[in-house]
Amino acid sequence: MTRILGIDPGSRYTGYGVIDTERGQSRLVVCGRIVAGTGAMPDRLVAIERELAGIVHEHAPQEAAFEEVFVDRNVRSALVLGQARGVALCVVARTGLPIAEYAPAQVKMALTGNGRADKEQVQHMVKLLLKLHGRLVADAADALAVALTHAQVRGVRQRSAVSLAGSGRKHR
Amino acid sequence: MTRILGIDPGSRYTGYGVIDTERGQSRLVVCGRIVAGTGAMPDRLVAIERELAGIVHEHAPQEAAFEEVFVDRNVRSALVLGQARGVALCVVARTGLPIAEYAPAQVKMALTGNGRADKEQVQHMVKLLLKLHGRLVADAADALAVALTHAQVRGVRQRSAVSLAGSGRKHR
Repeated sequence: MTRILGIDPGSRYTGYGVIDTERGQSRLVVCGRIVAGTGAMPDRLVAIERELAGIVHEHAPQEAAFEEVFVDRNVRSALVLGQARGVALCVVARTGLPIAEYAPAQVKMALTGNGRADKEQVQHMVKLLLKLHGRLVADAADALAVALTHAQVRGVRQRSAVSLAGSGRKHR
Repeated sequence: MTRILGIDPGSRYTGYGVIDTERGQSRLVVCGRIVAGTGAMPDRLVAIERELAGIVHEHAPQEAAFEEVFVDRNVRSALVLGQARGVALCVVARTGLPIAEYAPAQVKMALTGNGRADKEQVQHMVKLLLKLHGRLVADAADALAVALTHAQVRGVRQRSAVSLAGSGRKHR
């Protein structure tokens, strides 16, 4: 079993989701969003650091996954988002967790089979895969989506490693 | 006397400079640059965090100053720079230091009297004001420039407060 932390950083809200995954099956451990508030940016960054460090400490994930950022925003918002993202990456990386990054289209493709699926479809699949009912905060859903993508990608990688090892044995 | 930390964050090199300032006179305490390397971004961010936290701990500045970022870069580099800047802001803010930010033109104006001065002129004034000789690493010079700007701005603010208090007394 592997515990994966997915993160969707933002300067106001940072979504997070922790899942346990084993042989293609995943279950929710915890998800939510960190509210960094609307105060001065340095204070918001400190809030993100504190809360995220608490989540990492409490739930002890073994791997982490971030969504790569859209670069079709304007320069100002890229800088602001980058600041929040940098803090989140740093908090996770300093604990020694391996970090994987996935493009938005990869996440959509992994969860729905369509790299251009809309947010509702992705959220629907997150709930289906984790057997969740009721409303899910958008930031938490995005974080869980990237965690599930990582679970799927590493599952495929492991299965190929196993089958390669198997075919290797055949030829001995 | 007030100890000011100036920071010029970047994803490869983060310049820093610490000065002591008192009644319009400033002297260099320490300056240099943090080399974050060319590895994976999360590792670079952790390097920035560790080294900057060490500098803050060792030299115990009372106030900090950051240069505001040029927004005429492209979106991708704004995001990358934002990540380094976010970590630096967070490290400083979590120790409770007040943080001031200055636009590049403000720094140039404060040091040279010309908001469009070139880098060489700013560096020349940094060396003159701090009585430094020899070469100064560009990142460290930029960090010292923003620290000196802050020293000047807060000096003016204090002098106005004093003269207002003085004129207040006259009318009692």
